[in-house]
Amino acid sequence: MFNEFGKIIKLTTFGESHGTAIGGIVDGFPAGLPVDLEAVQKELDRRKPGQSKIVTQRKEDDKVEFFSGLLEGKTTGQSIGFLIPNTNQKSKDYEHNVQVFRPSHADFTYTQKYGIRDHRGGGRTSARETANWVVGGALCKQLIPEIKIQAYVSSIGEIQLNKHYTELDLSQVESNIVRCPEAPTAEKMIDLVSRIKKEGDTIGGTVTCVVQNMPIGLGEPIFDKLSARLAQAMMGINAAKGFEIGSGFDGTRCRGSEHNDIFIEGGKTLTNHSGGIQGGISNGMDVVFKVAFKPVATIMKEQSTINERGEASTIHGRGRHDPCVVPRAVPIVEALTAMVLADFTLLNKLRKI
Amino acid sequence: MFNEFGKIIKLTTFGESHGTAIGGIVDGFPAGLPVDLEAVQKELDRRKPGQSKIVTQRKEDDKVEFFSGLLEGKTTGQSIGFLIPNTNQKSKDYEHNVQVFRPSHADFTYTQKYGIRDHRGGGRTSARETANWVVGGALCKQLIPEIKIQAYVSSIGEIQLNKHYTELDLSQVESNIVRCPEAPTAEKMIDLVSRIKKEGDTIGGTVTCVVQNMPIGLGEPIFDKLSARLAQAMMGINAAKGFEIGSGFDGTRCRGSEHNDIFIEGGKTLTNHSGGIQGGISNGMDVVFKVAFKPVATIMKEQSTINERGEASTIHGRGRHDPCVVPRAVPIVEALTAMVLADFTLLNKLRKI
Amino acid sequence: MFNEFGKIIKLTTFGESHGTAIGGIVDGFPAGLPVDLEAVQKELDRRKPGQSKIVTQRKEDDKVEFFSGLLEGKTTGQSIGFLIPNTNQKSKDYEHNVQVFRPSHADFTYTQKYGIRDHRGGGRTSARETANWVVGGALCKQLIPEIKIQAYVSSIGEIQLNKHYTELDLSQVESNIVRCPEAPTAEKMIDLVSRIKKEGDTIGGTVTCVVQNMPIGLGEPIFDKLSARLAQAMMGINAAKGFEIGSGFDGTRCRGSEHNDIFIEGGKTLTNHSGGIQGGISNGMDVVFKVAFKPVATIMKEQSTINERGEASTIHGRGRHDPCVVPRAVPIVEALTAMVLADFTLLNKLRKI
Amino acid sequence: MFNEFGKIIKLTTFGESHGTAIGGIVDGFPAGLPVDLEAVQKELDRRKPGQSKIVTQRKEDDKVEFFSGLLEGKTTGQSIGFLIPNTNQKSKDYEHNVQVFRPSHADFTYTQKYGIRDHRGGGRTSARETANWVVGGALCKQLIPEIKIQAYVSSIGEIQLNKHYTELDLSQVESNIVRCPEAPTAEKMIDLVSRIKKEGDTIGGTVTCVVQNMPIGLGEPIFDKLSARLAQAMMGINAAKGFEIGSGFDGTRCRGSEHNDIFIEGGKTLTNHSGGIQGGISNGMDVVFKVAFKPVATIMKEQSTINERGEASTIHGRGRHDPCVVPRAVPIVEALTAMVLADFTLLNKLRKI
Repeated sequence: MFNEFGKIIKLTTFGESHGTAIGGIVDGFPAGLPVDLEAVQKELDRRKPGQSKIVTQRKEDDKVEFFSGLLEGKTTGQSIGFLIPNTNQKSKDYEHNVQVFRPSHADFTYTQKYGIRDHRGGGRTSARETANWVVGGALCKQLIPEIKIQAYVSSIGEIQLNKHYTELDLSQVESNIVRCPEAPTAEKMIDLVSRIKKEGDTIGGTVTCVVQNMPIGLGEPIFDKLSARLAQAMMGINAAKGFEIGSGFDGTRCRGSEHNDIFIEGGKTLTNHSGGIQGGISNGMDVVFKVAFKPVATIMKEQSTINERGEASTIHGRGRHDPCVVPRAVPIVEALTAMVLADFTLLNKLRKI
Repeated sequence: MFNEFGKIIKLTTFGESHGTAIGGIVDGFPAGLPVDLEAVQKELDRRKPGQSKIVTQRKEDDKVEFFSGLLEGKTTGQSIGFLIPNTNQKSKDYEHNVQVFRPSHADFTYTQKYGIRDHRGGGRTSARETANWVVGGALCKQLIPEIKIQAYVSSIGEIQLNKHYTELDLSQVESNIVRCPEAPTAEKMIDLVSRIKKEGDTIGGTVTCVVQNMPIGLGEPIFDKLSARLAQAMMGINAAKGFEIGSGFDGTRCRGSEHNDIFIEGGKTLTNHSGGIQGGISNGMDVVFKVAFKPVATIMKEQSTINERGEASTIHGRGRHDPCVVPRAVPIVEALTAMVLADFTLLNKLRKI
Repeated sequence: MFNEFGKIIKLTTFGESHGTAIGGIVDGFPAGLPVDLEAVQKELDRRKPGQSKIVTQRKEDDKVEFFSGLLEGKTTGQSIGFLIPNTNQKSKDYEHNVQVFRPSHADFTYTQKYGIRDHRGGGRTSARETANWVVGGALCKQLIPEIKIQAYVSSIGEIQLNKHYTELDLSQVESNIVRCPEAPTAEKMIDLVSRIKKEGDTIGGTVTCVVQNMPIGLGEPIFDKLSARLAQAMMGINAAKGFEIGSGFDGTRCRGSEHNDIFIEGGKTLTNHSGGIQGGISNGMDVVFKVAFKPVATIMKEQSTINERGEASTIHGRGRHDPCVVPRAVPIVEALTAMVLADFTLLNKLRKI
Repeated sequence: MFNEFGKIIKLTTFGESHGTAIGGIVDGFPAGLPVDLEAVQKELDRRKPGQSKIVTQRKEDDKVEFFSGLLEGKTTGQSIGFLIPNTNQKSKDYEHNVQVFRPSHADFTYTQKYGIRDHRGGGRTSARETANWVVGGALCKQLIPEIKIQAYVSSIGEIQLNKHYTELDLSQVESNIVRCPEAPTAEKMIDLVSRIKKEGDTIGGTVTCVVQNMPIGLGEPIFDKLSARLAQAMMGINAAKGFEIGSGFDGTRCRGSEHNDIFIEGGKTLTNHSGGIQGGISNGMDVVFKVAFKPVATIMKEQSTINERGEASTIHGRGRHDPCVVPRAVPIVEALTAMVLADFTLLNKLRKI
C-alpha cells in the first residue's frame, strides 16, 4: 500500500538514511533469468554519493547483498530480498536539526503526519531510498534487454542543452560527471554546479529520458496508461516537480493539424510529438519524457525557520549535501523507467488469448 | 488492475462510447454520508458534450443512475454501482474509420495491443469514460467538504492567463464557457477556439488546479506521494501530456536559497514554491498544479495516414468533435483531484495509533 | 479492497437484494475469446430461485445484460460491465424485520458495523449477490475450457453420499433437483428437504467439487496457494462454515507413510490424498475439495431474539426462503472455482521467462 | 502479488531454508506504537526447531534483526524491515534429494512450475518461511492488545481432546511440549509422537484457535469476510488441509432451529454455533476455528518415487525433520490470526464517517 511499486513485478522497500541498512523485496520476477549481479552493482555505483566533485562528499559504498530468489546465477521465480548496509551514517552532522524544521524539507510534514521526528536525520524521506529503486530497476533492465533506456541531464539552472536527442550521441552520457551528452554544455553545467557549491547554495535542473526499441502495446487503458505510470514513478523521486512526455507543455500551443503524428507505412510516424505513446499505450516510436527537479532544500546558508514549538528560529545547513541532485537522478530515472516497462511487458503477455 | 483507481476508495469502470451505457463501481466509501445526488448530476452537466458553442455539438444527456450503496439519501458502506446510458451513440459518423488509422489517436495502439478494432468508434479510448470519473469525483468531493478544489483554464494555444491564482476571482470560473476566471482573457480564448473550430482544426491548452483549505499530512511517502498520485491521475486524462506542481519546470532554474519556502509561525510558509507538498505530503498550504493538454487528434481536415493493412491512405475527420477539450477538462481535473484527496484523507486516519 | 475478487481477472460487484439491480465488472479478461452468452445465462438458471419445489419459491428471472467488453461475440480486452435486474424485490415480506434481529443472520453485525439497517431486507448480505459470481465464473469457465469443474451435493443433514467421486457418474448431477449424482441418495435428500420445508425449518449439508484435467503448476507459493485461494473463495459463500481439500480432517489421523502420494512414472501419483495440490500448487491430479454449509438462518418458526434497542423480542420468519441452500450452492462453488483457476492460469504465463 | 499478505498492514516476505537469511517487510503499521521486541523474539522461540524432544532436532537460533520503522522503541509509521539469519543450513543432509522427488512434497510441483529445482533443500517451500509470519504476527498482536488469541493442539492422530474450550484452562497451553491444555491428553499425545518418531514416521493433527474479547464489526462483506480471510491464512500454512469455523462440518447435520444462535439482551448470543462470525463479520462472541494438518511428507522410511527424468526410484528420508508439526503450528496459527485481526481493525476505522 505505502512502500511498494509495480503491479506484477512489485518492489517493496524499507530503510532510513541513518539506520543500519536499507533494502527491499522484488516480487513477481519470472524464473530462469540469468542475472548479472555486477551490472546491478554498477548501476548503484552510478547513483552513489561521493562519486565526483559536484555531488555530495558523503561516502557510501552502497554494496548490495542478495538473500533469496537467485540460484546459480538465475532467478528462481521466488521473491528476491536484498540489503544495502549504511556504512557511513553520521548522525552527528544532523544533530542541529532536532529542533528546527528545514525549509522546503519533509521534516515538517512527516512530523505532523506521524507525530514523530526522526532526529537522526532525513530518515525515510532521504533520497538514500532511491538506492533501493536502482537495485529493482537494474534487475528489471535485465528482463527487457532489447529495450534501450538512456537518460541524461538536459538542463541545470539556466543552462539548457538545446538539441533534440536525435542530434546527440547518447553514448557520451557517462563521459562526464554531470551526465550531459554534449561536452561544451556539460562543461558549463559543471562550472555552474561548482560555483553554486562554493556559495553553499543548490540548483535545479531537468533530466530527459529516451527509450528506444520500444515494443508496441505497453501500457494499459484508463488509469494505468504508460504515461500515467511513468509520471507517478518520476514524481515520486525526491525533488521532482514536473513531468512531460512528447511535446509536453509546448504541445499545448499547437494545432491538431501540426501536432498529429502522421502514420507512414510500417506503422511508424513521421513526427513523434506523442512521445511514443497514444491513448496511454506505446506505439513503437521512441518514448521521450522530461522530469523537472527543484533545487535541493538543504543549503549551507542561514535561513529563517521555526522550531518544533512553532517559534521563529534560524537554521544553517551543515553536513555533506548535494549542490545539485540532477546528475545523480539520471540512473534513478532509468531504474524507475525499467521497472515500469518490465511490469507492462509482463502484463502484456496476458492481454490477448 | 486495469480499470481501477484508488487505494481505499476505489473506482472501477467500464464502457465504450458506442455501447449502450458506461458505468462503474465506487468501493470503499464509508457508511453514513448524506449524498447530494443533484450535485453529482451537476458535475456531470459541467462535463457533458453540447453545453456550449465551443465544444462538440454531440448531445448526451449523461444522466447517472445509482443501483446500490445508498439508502434514504445516505451511503450504506456498500459498493456503489452506477450507470450512464449512452443516448446518442451514432456509429454511422465513424464508419469511415473502419479501415484507416486516425493520426495521433489510440486506434492504432489498441488494435495492435488487443488484436481487435472497435469499428463503432473510439470504444474504450473515448473521453466518454471521463463521465465515470466525474461521478466518482463528485461523490468523493462530498466526503471532504472542507477542502475546496477549483480548476480553471489557464491557457489555450498561445493565449495565456498571466496572473497568479491569488490575483484571480476563482468564483468566476463558471461565468463563461471557456472556464477562464478572467473575462478579457476568456473572451480571447473563446474567439480563438471559435476560429479554430471554423478551420476544422483543434488546439491545446492548460488547466490549473488550486486546492485550498488543505489539511496537513495527506500523501504517503515513497511511491504514493500526493504529487505522484495526482500526476498519475492527471496523466490518465485523454490528451494530457504534462504535469507540474508548485514551481514546476520554472523551479528548475532556481537556486535553493530563493526556492525554499520559509516557515513562519503557525507552520505556514512565506512563499509556496512547493505547491503545498513537501516530501510528497501536504504541508497545509494550497496545493497548486497545472496539466498540459495537446490538441485533440481528430480534425476536420484531410490527413495522410495508413489503413489496417499498412497501406498509405488519407482520412478526413467527420462527426462532432471538440475543437478544444480544455474547458471540458476542468471538471475532470477536479473530479480526479477529489478522488485522490478523499482516498488519502481516509488513509491518513490509519497512520497514527 | 472490499467487493473484489481475483488478482489478474478481477470481479468487482455491487447490489442489494431489494434494490433495482445487482451487477459487476469483470476486469483483466484477455481479448479475443469467443464468449457463449447463452452458456452464461444457463449457469444463472442453475442458481436462480424458484427452479424446483425444494428451493425458495421466490421468482427471479435473473437475466444478465452486458454493457461492454464484448464485440461481435468476442472479448475486447476491456472491462466487462453487467447488470442483473431485480424483478421481484418484495420489500413488504420483510417489513417485520425492521426492528428485530434475525438469529444467526448478518442483520446484527451489519447494523453494528455500518450504523445503518437496511430495512428493505437482506441488502448486501443476501445470497442474491452470488448471481454476480456465477456470471464471473461462467465467463472464466470459457477461458479454461480444457479444465472440467463439477460440483455436487455430497450430504444433506445426516444423509451422506458414501461413495468416492471416482465411483460416481458425475454427468448425473443435473438429473435431479438436489444435484446429487446418485439417484437413491438423491431421493432421500429430496424427501428430507421436503419434510424440513413443511416443518418451516432449514437444514445444512456439504458440496464436493472435483476438478479434472488440471494442468500442473497452478497456485502461488506462500499466501496465494491454490488451496488457500479456494478456501477464501468458498468461505465467502453465504452459510459456508468449513472447507477441506484432499484427505482434509480425516487425513489428520493418518501417518505419513500411509498418507504420502507415491509418484509413478509420468508424474502421476498412486493415491491422491493431497487433493491435487502439493505445496499449494497443482500437481496435475484431480483437485478435490468439500465445503460445509450450515442451515439457513431464516426459519418459519418462532424464535426468541432482541430488537434494535437491545430488548427481548420474538421473530417468526415469513417470506420465501430456502429450506436448504446446498443444491443451489453447486453452481456457485463451480463459479468461484473457475474464477480462481482462470486467474492462476493467466498468472502462470508469467512465472517462467 | 505472490509473497504478500494483508490489505492495510501488509507483510511481504522472502527467503529460502538453505539461503543465508529469510526476512520480510511489514508495511502499513501506524506510527507511535511502543513495540516490545522481546515479545517478538519470544514468539519466534515458540516456533523454533529444536525446542523439545518431539520436534525436529535441527537447531536454529531464529534471532530477528530489525532495520527500520522503529525509533526509540516505537513504530514510526514507516515500513519495518527485518531479517532472520539461517544459522544452521546444512545443505549436505539434503543432497540425496537432488534427483528424486519426495512423495507428497512440493519438490515436484515447484520444479514443474518454475523449471528449476532448488537442490539445496526445501527452498521457498520450507516451513522455515513461517518464522517470518511469526514476526509479522507478533507485531500485529501488539497493535490489538485487548484481543486475546490462544491456539492449542486439539488432536494428534486418533488422540482427540474431547472437551469444549470453555471447559479448558487455556493458560496451560504452554505447560507441556505438545501444547495441549489438558495434561492427561497431552501426555498421550507426547507418547504417540515419540513412538511415531522412533518409527521414522510422521502424524497429523488439528489446532483449535480461540479469540476472546473480540470487537463487533471486524470483517468485510462478500470476498473478504473474516471467515474467508482466516481460511486463506490458515490454508497457507504448510501441511494444512482443512479449516472450519464455529460448528463447521458438524453444523451441516443441524436444523436451523437448533443451529441458530439466539440473541440475548446486550447483543450476546445463547449459543455460539456461528463461531463469532455472522455474515462474515464478527458479532462480539468468541471466534473459534480449527485447522487440519496432514502428516509431514518427509519420513525416515523407504518409499517408491520417481526421479527428475520420470524414472522409478526410491527415497529414504534423512536429515532432521518433524515427526509432527502440529505443536509448532500453534504460534503460527496465532500469528496469522493476529495479522488478519489487526488488518481488519484498521480497516474498520474507515467504514463509518
